[in-house]
Amino acid sequence: MSIKVCIFLGIITFLSPIYLSKGDYIFATDYYEVPVDHFSYARNETFKIKYLYNDTYWNRTGNGPIFFYTGNEGLIEVFAQNTGLMWDLAPQFGALLLFAEHRYYGASMPFGNDSFSSPDKSGYLTSEQALADFAQFLTWYRTSEGAEKSPIIAFGGSYGGMLTAWMRMKYPHIIAGGIAASAPIAQFQGLTPCNKYGQIVSADFQRVGINCFKTIRKSWGIINSFGENDGGRGWISKTFRLCKHLETKDDVEQFKEWLVDVYGYLAMIDYPYENSFLEPVPGNPVRAVCNLLSDPNESGKVLLRSIFKGVSIYFNYTGQSKCLDFTDEATGDLNAGGWDFQACTEMIMPICYDGQTDMFEPNPWNLTHYSDDCFSRFGVRPDPKVAELIYGGRDISAASNIVFSNGLLDPWYGGGMLNNLSSTLIAVVIPEGAHHLDLRSSHPKDPASVVTARKIEAGEIKKWIAEFHEKHEKQNLYYSSLEM
Amino acid sequence: MSIKVCIFLGIITFLSPIYLSKGDYIFATDYYEVPVDHFSYARNETFKIKYLYNDTYWNRTGNGPIFFYTGNEGLIEVFAQNTGLMWDLAPQFGALLLFAEHRYYGASMPFGNDSFSSPDKSGYLTSEQALADFAQFLTWYRTSEGAEKSPIIAFGGSYGGMLTAWMRMKYPHIIAGGIAASAPIAQFQGLTPCNKYGQIVSADFQRVGINCFKTIRKSWGIINSFGENDGGRGWISKTFRLCKHLETKDDVEQFKEWLVDVYGYLAMIDYPYENSFLEPVPGNPVRAVCNLLSDPNESGKVLLRSIFKGVSIYFNYTGQSKCLDFTDEATGDLNAGGWDFQACTEMIMPICYDGQTDMFEPNPWNLTHYSDDCFSRFGVRPDPKVAELIYGGRDISAASNIVFSNGLLDPWYGGGMLNNLSSTLIAVVIPEGAHHLDLRSSHPKDPASVVTARKIEAGEIKKWIAEFHEKHEKQNLYYSSLEM
Repeated sequence: MSIKVCIFLGIITFLSPIYLSKGDYIFATDYYEVPVDHFSYARNETFKIKYLYNDTYWNRTGNGPIFFYTGNEGLIEVFAQNTGLMWDLAPQFGALLLFAEHRYYGASMPFGNDSFSSPDKSGYLTSEQALADFAQFLTWYRTSEGAEKSPIIAFGGSYGGMLTAWMRMKYPHIIAGGIAASAPIAQFQGLTPCNKYGQIVSADFQRVGINCFKTIRKSWGIINSFGENDGGRGWISKTFRLCKHLETKDDVEQFKEWLVDVYGYLAMIDYPYENSFLEPVPGNPVRAVCNLLSDPNESGKVLLRSIFKGVSIYFNYTGQSKCLDFTDEATGDLNAGGWDFQACTEMIMPICYDGQTDMFEPNPWNLTHYSDDCFSRFGVRPDPKVAELIYGGRDISAASNIVFSNGLLDPWYGGGMLNNLSSTLIAVVIPEGAHHLDLRSSHPKDPASVVTARKIEAGEIKKWIAEFHEKHEKQNLYYSSLEM
Repeated sequence: MSIKVCIFLGIITFLSPIYLSKGDYIFATDYYEVPVDHFSYARNETFKIKYLYNDTYWNRTGNGPIFFYTGNEGLIEVFAQNTGLMWDLAPQFGALLLFAEHRYYGASMPFGNDSFSSPDKSGYLTSEQALADFAQFLTWYRTSEGAEKSPIIAFGGSYGGMLTAWMRMKYPHIIAGGIAASAPIAQFQGLTPCNKYGQIVSADFQRVGINCFKTIRKSWGIINSFGENDGGRGWISKTFRLCKHLETKDDVEQFKEWLVDVYGYLAMIDYPYENSFLEPVPGNPVRAVCNLLSDPNESGKVLLRSIFKGVSIYFNYTGQSKCLDFTDEATGDLNAGGWDFQACTEMIMPICYDGQTDMFEPNPWNLTHYSDDCFSRFGVRPDPKVAELIYGGRDISAASNIVFSNGLLDPWYGGGMLNNLSSTLIAVVIPEGAHHLDLRSSHPKDPASVVTARKIEAGEIKKWIAEFHEKHEKQNLYYSSLEM
């Protein structure tokens, strides 16, 4: 089985096209020049990162806050359009909306099309460099707008949520506080069991019906059996309307990986209302899939036909897809290349399946194999401990002013912070929430738990803003006593 | 007047030889391999930093702490020998003593003798990279010693004190707390007036006697007058026994700079007891000098002869120096080159004199001139705002567990933290203290204020250790609940 480098990104890249087409929010676009390397003086290159802003609601004269999205692995427009919480809260806070693109994604390529050609170019794609981009950008932005008295509140989801948390931890003089949604800052080696992700996905399906769980678990053996010979592979290819026929056993492995990913994505986007992603999906898509997978006693072909109908809800809800492209991994463009590279250097988030506590085939985490694959693809090798070294893993009690929100339907919550660490490090658990549901715009079908979560978040933001202004007034007095 | 890049380092380089010869403390030496660049994957080079340790007092089984010195601009042995406080406190705390050398100093050269040959080699000399060295080293050290339950307490003086504070700010999961002595973390543009340093030096001399201040202030005009012609320059050269005669007006400027530096060094090392540095000096050296500069009404030659006798206490207390080498700036070896480079990139600490509030000739801060000089020497240009961007300047209230100690005789206190920022960010002011007096070993002539300061520091360390153990026990429970 080939090593899957890219798991975390998947959903974002998958979903980008439709996210973009659903552009409900309006913003202006500009660029800001940053050094390729913030942490040495060996190179002088610079490049531009993209940022978006909207000042419709900004109470500039009243030192209204800046709501800042710490852009993650994808086009910044995606996050601007899909972080409705920021837009919903902006009017009541008189906030400016600001979204900065992460280096090496979207239009923010340090070396243009060559950005991933070799490690001496791609090597500056790290979270630390991205945070330094944001720090420099925000300092400049606030100064150029004369907004030194405007506190900056960071928002981020998923990897962007990790960046929000780390931004507050490393640059608390720039970020007054942060909403880190579905941020698996502890999804690293030795901090979270690698089978946790698969257990949560499986539990999501089991919650809807134990038979669903059993049906999926049973399917792997049947696929393997069919995958043994040309006839079986042909039958699967035809039944699942595969764009590319299963010619070899490797194809079968890749097909199964696609299915595993889809179950994970379904768990991540298990929102209570219809939403249009790669293809539109209904509300509670896991339930919709499981309604079709209710009988684990079905025999081979019947059971696989049910599986096909089930996953069709994910990739073909409207019936417009001509075929199922199981080779469509999130590696086809530079964005995906970006995350794959990060997943091959510092963002090593081990995922494994044991087949006992989850509904998947056993698939252990193999760092050696993973590392070799990274080296052959990018000329770099992963450093599984570096993220913990730099950011502290779960040991972040010295930080402050961060809300960590996690939905219990989200496979990533296993690597998240689920307990309050102090009065200013708040954990918000959303039992009915999938991947950063709280960051989305409010919706009539929102469960009560996410409504409450957003209220808590707004309350914390209010506190951070008050604290900032109080501190700022004190500091002004102090500075003015210095003869500069 | 030429630009003096190196001011901060001076004292260390100046004093190194004798520091080393006074090796009262015993330690073992070893090396640890670190990457040249912690923050990118563009380069693969590694090199070794030196570290020293002594486990005589370590209560290993009782999880005794690790006392760690964040090495600054010089040979690490210098700091091991001159941070007596750590050795004094080690027995009562059952502490391991550990000292790590800062990259690009002493034996810790990334590219050997070529380390300063061009920016692509020297460019990795930054405080952020040094902190990452320490973080990686400490994580490895603790693991390899099985000492995960031993809290690490950082110590540092001057730039080393800045590193201690920043280490706790950036890596609080690694450093439980830090004693940052005489750490001018705010000696940057816009944070501290550039004339503050000269004002403090002048105040030190004025405190001993207003006539001393007046005599020194008057001397510059007389030197200028003598410096106008060959005869006058010859007279000064002979009277001051200069190793190199003053041939030109530039020589005269350099000579005056030397004098300005000496007054600053005298203020820095104005300890209450005899101590042997480059040459031995008596206790309270500023007083000793000023005893010879008590009559500002002296005429030209008589006054300059007094100045010569005064500074002789600094450079020739034992009378063994054959001549006064005013060209002996701290630039002759790689160590000095290291600080000069840092002072040309991120460690820009503006110093100026106004001639009104200090006893020096007016000498404004000229960034353009400074920058051009840096570029011609190293091929780099200073970034005066980067240190504040990365570390926050005075805006550090989100940090915790740091003691900032400052002596009011120390010219650097102007850039230090002199007020408590919270219950865990403690400012300790030592009215009778010169440059990090508290870090030195206790001495019968210590003023009461430094005895008190050390007691406060020991008390904070005790709290940090207790807090660490409490947290660690909680975390152990939490981790063990995860099925890894």
